[in-house]
Amino acid sequence: MDRIPLVTLTTDFGTADGYVGTMKGVILTIAPTAHLVDISHEIAPQNLRQAAYVLYTSYPFFPPGTVHLIVVDPGVGSARRPIALRTPAGDFVAPDNGVLSYVMAREPVEALVELSDPRYRLSQISHTFHGRDIFAPAAAHLAAGVPILSLGSPVSDPVTFSPPSVEITPAGITGEVLHTDHFGNVITSIGLLAWSESDLILTPAFREVQRGEPVRFRAAGAAVTVAGQEIGVHRTYAKVAPGETLALVGSEGHLEIAVREGSAAQRLGLHPGDTVILRP
Amino acid sequence: MDRIPLVTLTTDFGTADGYVGTMKGVILTIAPTAHLVDISHEIAPQNLRQAAYVLYTSYPFFPPGTVHLIVVDPGVGSARRPIALRTPAGDFVAPDNGVLSYVMAREPVEALVELSDPRYRLSQISHTFHGRDIFAPAAAHLAAGVPILSLGSPVSDPVTFSPPSVEITPAGITGEVLHTDHFGNVITSIGLLAWSESDLILTPAFREVQRGEPVRFRAAGAAVTVAGQEIGVHRTYAKVAPGETLALVGSEGHLEIAVREGSAAQRLGLHPGDTVILRP
Amino acid sequence: MDRIPLVTLTTDFGTADGYVGTMKGVILTIAPTAHLVDISHEIAPQNLRQAAYVLYTSYPFFPPGTVHLIVVDPGVGSARRPIALRTPAGDFVAPDNGVLSYVMAREPVEALVELSDPRYRLSQISHTFHGRDIFAPAAAHLAAGVPILSLGSPVSDPVTFSPPSVEITPAGITGEVLHTDHFGNVITSIGLLAWSESDLILTPAFREVQRGEPVRFRAAGAAVTVAGQEIGVHRTYAKVAPGETLALVGSEGHLEIAVREGSAAQRLGLHPGDTVILRP
Repeated sequence: MDRIPLVTLTTDFGTADGYVGTMKGVILTIAPTAHLVDISHEIAPQNLRQAAYVLYTSYPFFPPGTVHLIVVDPGVGSARRPIALRTPAGDFVAPDNGVLSYVMAREPVEALVELSDPRYRLSQISHTFHGRDIFAPAAAHLAAGVPILSLGSPVSDPVTFSPPSVEITPAGITGEVLHTDHFGNVITSIGLLAWSESDLILTPAFREVQRGEPVRFRAAGAAVTVAGQEIGVHRTYAKVAPGETLALVGSEGHLEIAVREGSAAQRLGLHPGDTVILRP
Repeated sequence: MDRIPLVTLTTDFGTADGYVGTMKGVILTIAPTAHLVDISHEIAPQNLRQAAYVLYTSYPFFPPGTVHLIVVDPGVGSARRPIALRTPAGDFVAPDNGVLSYVMAREPVEALVELSDPRYRLSQISHTFHGRDIFAPAAAHLAAGVPILSLGSPVSDPVTFSPPSVEITPAGITGEVLHTDHFGNVITSIGLLAWSESDLILTPAFREVQRGEPVRFRAAGAAVTVAGQEIGVHRTYAKVAPGETLALVGSEGHLEIAVREGSAAQRLGLHPGDTVILRP
Repeated sequence: MDRIPLVTLTTDFGTADGYVGTMKGVILTIAPTAHLVDISHEIAPQNLRQAAYVLYTSYPFFPPGTVHLIVVDPGVGSARRPIALRTPAGDFVAPDNGVLSYVMAREPVEALVELSDPRYRLSQISHTFHGRDIFAPAAAHLAAGVPILSLGSPVSDPVTFSPPSVEITPAGITGEVLHTDHFGNVITSIGLLAWSESDLILTPAFREVQRGEPVRFRAAGAAVTVAGQEIGVHRTYAKVAPGETLALVGSEGHLEIAVREGSAAQRLGLHPGDTVILRP
């Protein structure tokens, strides 16, 4: 059996208005055999960093060859470029506004083009819905096998923003809150952390912040300071009683603050950008 | 490869209860190869006009032959008929309560039948969930290739409601707010508008309100009056500063009121039914 | 054509964070031809009884052979076992925490195993996201045809909780509120009820509460007492005026309290666990 094309969708469109369904109609008109998977349509409106983070946690779990379509696009109708990026981990179709920054900080860029060829757009382009008119058709044509270099001319200067802040000093590792999830878990920029017996090993998550060797320290003495509180580091939720606060290594390898069967974001009043310090 | 049947779903069921999943189980039991696409399950409970609008913006972007299943059904359990409609743009399965009005105002009716044949329903019919027991099986059988005339007897008097109000006079074009979307964009009944160089051309969106020739006027002098404010018409969000209010031609060709990177619905306190005047 | 593997997903993950999308990526990496259907991702966090109820209403409408993946997992990272259950109605992959109780009370158990074989997990297991690392791979391997007994060793003592309370006495049938849905309909544990001409017949829904013969009584004299009010039993919403309260037999065969075109949960202030009495 032929390979089934796979396209994921990440937007700030919500799911009430039919915008996402419309994009899927466009994709399936061009690539009728494609399978479509929603990553999230509840990115906060125009929040590029949140979209970049959610994509960063999801795309590594899809097969190579997957086309990831991301439409969080505060600049729709302006001169910002629509782009397609090819990496060994998959293709990415998005506005050139930095939303692919974390992907580009982890994956080698095999090709990067502007979506300029009108053959791979809808025949009419609105001023407000490029998700439907430009991005969805490009993703569908890629999924259907159109070579990425056919979509338009190469781009050498994509817009990127810096990866999340994390600073390693002898006194501790300073990071920031990246994301608070549906359960109220607070994910920080301090990663990638991994357990090695009773030690923790920190290997910075993004190329730009890597400097020298991984940091290794005993977990038993470690503590996290956030919102004026000291919190112990544990392996799992089950190590504390229901309702208690803990720090742990989350599913992406980032330091996470959680309340067992509760919401750490609510209890500690934490928001993206707040400072977090891990003291080995 | 054989054609892959495509079924879309639009309901007011929400996604918490498993009602939508249950309908999909019914469809895939009957048509196992079908691809399913959600248009929206967040239609406000029993809001037929909102469902009709969301469908109107979505269905034209699906391939002909798609089966669109719409279950917004305040009359479930009463004598209202379940129907199936065939048009060149696709098939539509819904209660006969007007929710297909905007489709019928744009597309030629090729067939319209009542879903009366018990062979194409579940064997047990509940009094409260015809989406599962009548509509989903009908949509699935259509998708699987059952001729539409097999589903039941022809209907010649479908329930319809009038298309959204828009009145064209020499002094201006008066319409109403149709919908406010996830971003707070306010979509009006004034459409279809299109740019032709520096002019705007209005061709009424629905057959019933068409009278004579399209209206053409210079955009530079045009202004929109809504909620006691005058708002300028621009081509794109990017023509005003972030936080400013503008009117523009939206992705469906309707006049839209927006705040760049903000919510016009919230700022202007607009709701469906409010009056909007476009002065050329 | 070969059978298309079908996997459903029920979680308390919400849809904002990309967790569900990530699990789908894992499934489609292992079983690329699978069709995926969302049952619900809006189970209240860690609410096992709500998940069990939503699953109970949905799974009977999927084809036999469907793999149902349920991840509501307050015990993630503790010693609770991950399990897979085979029944004639389908396969179920979930934590061993009782969430499959209602399925096991209705369906014969053909096989029940612990997901212990590392070949059918991801190579790295996090402490917080077994949905991605253990449950999704197991569901995908089952869908792809791996024999259930290959997944791990048999389990003979699954965790279950008692089915919803319903007590039948000559004076009446006492049950409890099970669930309030998106529309504000209040579903009770009093089921399975069915109409037989002008009589109602009650056959208890779960094996454990069955005792002797079905109960049969005239519907005309029946009334429901809930929240200090008496409410009449009718066949359909259409039997009362819009805005009026009624009791009826819902789509699952359970007694339901509803307000026509309104919310009974809100009007009567009802919550899961509240007592409901049906007097024949």
